[in-house]
Amino acid sequence: MKVYLAGPEVFLSNAVEIQAEKAALARAAGFTPLVPGDLEIPPAETKHARGRAIYGVDEGMMLASDMIIANLTPFRGISADVGTVFELGFMCGRGRHVYAYTNTARSYYDRILHGHYGGKAAARADGRMAGPDGVSIEDFDMADNLMLDGGILARGGTFVKREVAEADRLTDLEAFKECLAIAAKQHLA
Amino acid sequence: MKVYLAGPEVFLSNAVEIQAEKAALARAAGFTPLVPGDLEIPPAETKHARGRAIYGVDEGMMLASDMIIANLTPFRGISADVGTVFELGFMCGRGRHVYAYTNTARSYYDRILHGHYGGKAAARADGRMAGPDGVSIEDFDMADNLMLDGGILARGGTFVKREVAEADRLTDLEAFKECLAIAAKQHLA
Repeated sequence: MKVYLAGPEVFLSNAVEIQAEKAALARAAGFTPLVPGDLEIPPAETKHARGRAIYGVDEGMMLASDMIIANLTPFRGISADVGTVFELGFMCGRGRHVYAYTNTARSYYDRILHGHYGGKAAARADGRMAGPDGVSIEDFDMADNLMLDGGILARGGTFVKREVAEADRLTDLEAFKECLAIAAKQHLA
Repeated sequence: MKVYLAGPEVFLSNAVEIQAEKAALARAAGFTPLVPGDLEIPPAETKHARGRAIYGVDEGMMLASDMIIANLTPFRGISADVGTVFELGFMCGRGRHVYAYTNTARSYYDRILHGHYGGKAAARADGRMAGPDGVSIEDFDMADNLMLDGGILARGGTFVKREVAEADRLTDLEAFKECLAIAAKQHLA
């Protein structure tokens, strides 16, 4: 069973090492890992064309995969990396198996309220809590926007949430290991 | 032809009015609009169950749609709303027609560099530009993470970019109208 390993670790300076470690863990759990960055990108004349070429390689890997494990740890803000979220949505759309993890146990509501609005919020005329800009704050006891949690759970997947110290948040692999163990139990007889 | 209208305007205090305006514009262009929030959400016992119920309704609307027009204007940070990005990925995965717009003409690179890192960046040992935290800054002349631009362009869609004053960024509909005009020309004979 092929699993696509998605996450913002591709942007880290030690991306190669972390992706190799994730791939080794996936293999040890009985999966065949497909990892963005593993395949050569066809040459391109412009930055924009290179970006599109990378997309093509990544989409090809997703189409070849039976499952995705997405690292949805908040990245440069209150939500998951949008590239990873696109991939999660894509695999949900394909009807593939989906698993995800986030290295924070704080809810999306809490991150918007305190991380984005500095704790300043009030009920709107329609009863919803909103920031000083009047934009409502999602409150569904979920780890991120409801489409992420909802999409994962709708197809029997698991979204592992684990509190990790901020310095290790983008690199800690315990929650990833937990995803692998759950997915192996469910799909590798 | 049914078009799913995705975007973070669902969080605004005048969400109902804006979504009604978008739906009216879509109808005027010859499409049948499907809009999150239009259908009743089945009752649920907890916040979490309600979030999942909303997901179910939205996924049903996407499955019933031939096309998505996604508002990818940056939302509470440097990237698009992750809920909308999930929906874009989902529709790409389903092989549906995809169109998107953003009400800023600034590149993703520029927003990360100046919006997130305050202009502080340096080349890493591997040659990539990175912030003071060592995390690389995507540089593909694109409007957001390459999976978004890439996914739209890979299936013949268009990503309209338009500079709008910050106060109107989440509500201005000129770029949305442009998407409708392009999509109508391409798919309504």
